[in-house]
Amino acid sequence: MKHDKSIAWPGGAKCAVMLTFDFDAETLWTGRDARNKQRPGVLSQGRYGATVGVPKILEMLSEEEAPATFFVPGWTVENHTDKVEMILKEGHEVGHHSYSHIWVSDDPAAEAEEFEKGLASLEKVGVKPKGFRSPAGEVSSGLLTTQAKAGLLYDTSLMDDINPYRHILPDGSKGPIELPWHWSLDDAPFALFSIASPRPIFTNSHILEVWKEEFREIYRWGGLFDLVMHPQITGRPSRIALLREMIAFMRSFPDVWFATGAEVAEAWAALEAEGKV
Amino acid sequence: MKHDKSIAWPGGAKCAVMLTFDFDAETLWTGRDARNKQRPGVLSQGRYGATVGVPKILEMLSEEEAPATFFVPGWTVENHTDKVEMILKEGHEVGHHSYSHIWVSDDPAAEAEEFEKGLASLEKVGVKPKGFRSPAGEVSSGLLTTQAKAGLLYDTSLMDDINPYRHILPDGSKGPIELPWHWSLDDAPFALFSIASPRPIFTNSHILEVWKEEFREIYRWGGLFDLVMHPQITGRPSRIALLREMIAFMRSFPDVWFATGAEVAEAWAALEAEGKV
Amino acid sequence: MKHDKSIAWPGGAKCAVMLTFDFDAETLWTGRDARNKQRPGVLSQGRYGATVGVPKILEMLSEEEAPATFFVPGWTVENHTDKVEMILKEGHEVGHHSYSHIWVSDDPAAEAEEFEKGLASLEKVGVKPKGFRSPAGEVSSGLLTTQAKAGLLYDTSLMDDINPYRHILPDGSKGPIELPWHWSLDDAPFALFSIASPRPIFTNSHILEVWKEEFREIYRWGGLFDLVMHPQITGRPSRIALLREMIAFMRSFPDVWFATGAEVAEAWAALEAEGKV
Amino acid sequence: MKHDKSIAWPGGAKCAVMLTFDFDAETLWTGRDARNKQRPGVLSQGRYGATVGVPKILEMLSEEEAPATFFVPGWTVENHTDKVEMILKEGHEVGHHSYSHIWVSDDPAAEAEEFEKGLASLEKVGVKPKGFRSPAGEVSSGLLTTQAKAGLLYDTSLMDDINPYRHILPDGSKGPIELPWHWSLDDAPFALFSIASPRPIFTNSHILEVWKEEFREIYRWGGLFDLVMHPQITGRPSRIALLREMIAFMRSFPDVWFATGAEVAEAWAALEAEGKV
Repeated sequence: MKHDKSIAWPGGAKCAVMLTFDFDAETLWTGRDARNKQRPGVLSQGRYGATVGVPKILEMLSEEEAPATFFVPGWTVENHTDKVEMILKEGHEVGHHSYSHIWVSDDPAAEAEEFEKGLASLEKVGVKPKGFRSPAGEVSSGLLTTQAKAGLLYDTSLMDDINPYRHILPDGSKGPIELPWHWSLDDAPFALFSIASPRPIFTNSHILEVWKEEFREIYRWGGLFDLVMHPQITGRPSRIALLREMIAFMRSFPDVWFATGAEVAEAWAALEAEGKV
Repeated sequence: MKHDKSIAWPGGAKCAVMLTFDFDAETLWTGRDARNKQRPGVLSQGRYGATVGVPKILEMLSEEEAPATFFVPGWTVENHTDKVEMILKEGHEVGHHSYSHIWVSDDPAAEAEEFEKGLASLEKVGVKPKGFRSPAGEVSSGLLTTQAKAGLLYDTSLMDDINPYRHILPDGSKGPIELPWHWSLDDAPFALFSIASPRPIFTNSHILEVWKEEFREIYRWGGLFDLVMHPQITGRPSRIALLREMIAFMRSFPDVWFATGAEVAEAWAALEAEGKV
Repeated sequence: MKHDKSIAWPGGAKCAVMLTFDFDAETLWTGRDARNKQRPGVLSQGRYGATVGVPKILEMLSEEEAPATFFVPGWTVENHTDKVEMILKEGHEVGHHSYSHIWVSDDPAAEAEEFEKGLASLEKVGVKPKGFRSPAGEVSSGLLTTQAKAGLLYDTSLMDDINPYRHILPDGSKGPIELPWHWSLDDAPFALFSIASPRPIFTNSHILEVWKEEFREIYRWGGLFDLVMHPQITGRPSRIALLREMIAFMRSFPDVWFATGAEVAEAWAALEAEGKV
Repeated sequence: MKHDKSIAWPGGAKCAVMLTFDFDAETLWTGRDARNKQRPGVLSQGRYGATVGVPKILEMLSEEEAPATFFVPGWTVENHTDKVEMILKEGHEVGHHSYSHIWVSDDPAAEAEEFEKGLASLEKVGVKPKGFRSPAGEVSSGLLTTQAKAGLLYDTSLMDDINPYRHILPDGSKGPIELPWHWSLDDAPFALFSIASPRPIFTNSHILEVWKEEFREIYRWGGLFDLVMHPQITGRPSRIALLREMIAFMRSFPDVWFATGAEVAEAWAALEAEGKV
């Protein structure tokens, strides 16, 4: 049997690449344990993402002329506004990433409130987001309806495909387009250490092997490679070098389309309108 | 001293290889924590096994002309029936893997109920299973008797040998044949990440080294190499490439017999009948 | 400054090597959680140490003509007596490893009882142990006195040196000689996976690098290399290959003395008597 | 965009390197769980840092003529006084590391008490510390004020930069200079195993890759490389070899300044006074 997964990406591209950054800053720590708000040591890990991570990542993306998508919680928009403006000035997309990075998959009402508050914060810096990513990919059953009502074009929280697909809401109407990711294409499982959750810290060559092997096959299949990073992790000096090498690796393949989340979703919507997906 | 572990496998083979897949889909997540039933993000990890994992694995097995055994929980049979039928159509064996993938090693009654319900679900797609694998290898003391009563030929849940052996039931009668596995020959310890259990994600070369070293010695000893995979893990693009490479590696050894669980159990039963094991 | 750690090992050897095996079998699992006694799946991991691990390890040690020390809990002596007799017949040392592998560091009375019961079990197979290793290296403050009263020559439970040293008891009298080990020279941190404690499973080359690097320096310093293994882990096919390679590596260095625990302790006691340590 | 992180280090150096050791000894274990005070097995891991780790590390630093900074809890000063005097005699800096290594980030009063007691212990061996590192980098909001009142020049507990920076206290006055570190430049995430927290043990080549990649980029950026080690971890034979190789690697780069914490803080303060940072 054959099971074709290829998509007719724009410009004849064989594969789409999204470089995405969840710019959580301190919310990565306060969202999981409110006591962390009083712990400067713990918070300093997240603050690094704002003080060093974002500027150095932007510098590298500028050198590489690569587009990216930053998903930013409302709290971060309000407390690191200059960094969000820096991202926008560089021409990258800014998407929605909740307000305070709490996990609300078991509480649709709290999730909706988080969604609204995050939207309001983004509006203050002039952003009307086209896409949403849920903290840690944890979503409630009400998420997609909430997004549809707010007019969002795409969600990028789920892991059940390597291609975009259209969500259908409980009432049968169209929901957002899903741009799937996967834990193995996230920097956090490989390099986010904390005392509360002391995961192993892996080498650049380990992470690159996982990402390269995954890219090689997704490219062969013709799908979407949705890389999920965090300025407090990939913003570390050695990890910026890692991403630079990963970009160079992907560019060594012909016909790779580097795009923002919105560009991918719009391209897929166009194919859908033509009945080509 | 010498301690011979070799078996006279069919056709003069030196070693038997079983490629097995535990097609848990969403039950991997709902079986451990019922709250996951309301968490689309968590569930999407399991659903990937059905939407992408199974079709792409079947495509690869078809290209490689390699037989496999899929152990499928009743819930998955009912909720991903088309994928189970796809497996059957491709000529692979389908075995029993409980109904809902809950761990019932401390509750023989629940285990028996899970067993019966799973059997009923398999019957609906025309499968009368010859073999059983328990979720996570967790079994109660009553498991083997339950299997024997249901007429199952083999169990593949335990880890106390590298060769098949015959279970003897508490009443002295013959139980099923055991086809042992081991955690180091399972994909889950190497690549199953979740927020609730954030295990490290290893590279293809790491996993291949563990599997190849183990194969090399089991081959030398003349035993059974029982590989345990999951469509939501090995079905990821890069991991299908891994399995393809592993199959090629094993085929580079002479006299390797690729077989389903039922074929291995039947071959061993024949040797037993001849008094050769 | 200089800090010499070298010891005048017998025969002019530069370094002593102990190959030790904690033959826990099922007690590794029942000692930590009594509910495991009713879980055949969990227990099968430990039983492998008896059914396959010990015979195949003995076969390899015989081929390599290498002496070893097996620390055996009383429960294992009683339930796998044939395997303990096999070890003795091959000429290896059998030491004390508690009765049921429970952790009793917070309960000196239970520890003493475990010690007595283990001693009685060993006596049944004709063993009067010279050495003791505590399960997981967990010991109570009363351990050394208990050992001294029982006339034990050495303990090998602590990690505070790379050379043997003499314990002094609270009353100022001589206690047993300590033969230190370390977690990094144990197979369990690298390859013992279980659902209850899902540690990563490492490759042979990973484990060999840690062990070789440690050996290289201990050899250079002139100390004791006390390797701690388990038949249910190192008895896996690939891990026996690992140990075979490790032995060959150590033998590629001149003047390495492979010895049992008792031989090392006796050699050190002789140096002590001469005032040379 | 460009985001320059370079600093005009003394003597035209491009990068500053601090070799730091948190000489916790037994307090690493007693600080997290007071029951460990009665557990000789657990404590022996920490004691190794004093019995073997410190002397052998000092021997190697002496051979390499490399300066280091040891942060020592008061308890360790009092219970391993000879080793602290050995460190001082070798000319290394001794800094403050609390009294008993408990985590007090949620209790500013306890933190202040720990700080005062640690200061008193250091005074007994003639040390008036210039720098402080908090156990595990966990600090309360009052930490910086406490340090400022005690006249400390620098803190090295936070992770929000790769360059030194000046803390501003809540009342607007100047606090200590921060010399940031990061978990990936600590030996504990890679090689500290315990039964209570069974982290993976990594190879020298793994740790070296992480440290070298991080050094390479920090060197390129022109920042501070603040390596955090523990005598009970890096004092193991193989890990001393690792550090020796790391030092050689860093010395293969031109214009690297090896300095103590106090030297780095003083150099940065001088730049600050000149308005150059």
